Amino acid sequence: MISLNFTKSEQGLLPAIAQDYVTGDILMLAYINQEAWEKTLATGKAHYWSRSRNKIWLKGETSGHVQLVKDILVDCDEDTVVFKVEQLGAAACHKGYGSCFFRRVDGQALTVVGERVFDPDSVYKK
Amino acid sequence: MISLNFTKSEQGLLPAIAQDYVTGDILMLAYINQEAWEKTLATGKAHYWSRSRNKIWLKGETSGHVQLVKDILVDCDEDTVVFKVEQLGAAACHKGYGSCFFRRVDGQALTVVGERVFDPDSVYKK
Repeated sequence: MISLNFTKSEQGLLPAIAQDYVTGDILMLAYINQEAWEKTLATGKAHYWSRSRNKIWLKGETSGHVQLVKDILVDCDEDTVVFKVEQLGAAACHKGYGSCFFRRVDGQALTVVGERVFDPDSVYKK
Repeated sequence: MISLNFTKSEQGLLPAIAQDYVTGDILMLAYINQEAWEKTLATGKAHYWSRSRNKIWLKGETSGHVQLVKDILVDCDEDTVVFKVEQLGAAACHKGYGSCFFRRVDGQALTVVGERVFDPDSVYKK
């Protein structure tokens, strides 16, 4: 198995960038630990470490918006990876947008440039 | 000025992804603090916080490979940004490659898929 420099962070977490394998759009950034890395390699589905829930997170486990990993790139320091993915459900963001990066800096304001694909209230039951 | 959630990290650092504004290639990931964010917005050149040197870092200050920021995307949690850049010198990586993500996971090995643009020894004098 390919080793990453998990010791670079005190918490043993490294950033993983999910990028659409066709369009090149950056969909989201989340964090992986050793277990998430191993599960991603073993299953071909993106797994992360949820810092808010403090647990392993199969992306899409609630929404069904799983990320099928088509390719993985590793950076020069082995402390960041890019998951090139097929995003099922066409939405990576829990706010219903295709990408978490759905706003751009426009002077002193943020302008929405992304497209909303689903209504979060109907997907994440309260 | 657009506010980011710098308090999300204990060190006040957030990840910034540099992406080629034409090709969509992910060039590198580095970290920004409030000062790097302000300097980037004010100058239009990507500034980061160097964790190894513990100082503000104008990307390209040594190599001349400055990143001209064409657009900035902010994520749903305001704790990660994408700098869409024109990479001067055609190389973002200190190892001489266009992108820091110049290797892909190929089974149990990493295969070089990026192109080397310059020789680091000739750019970073010892």
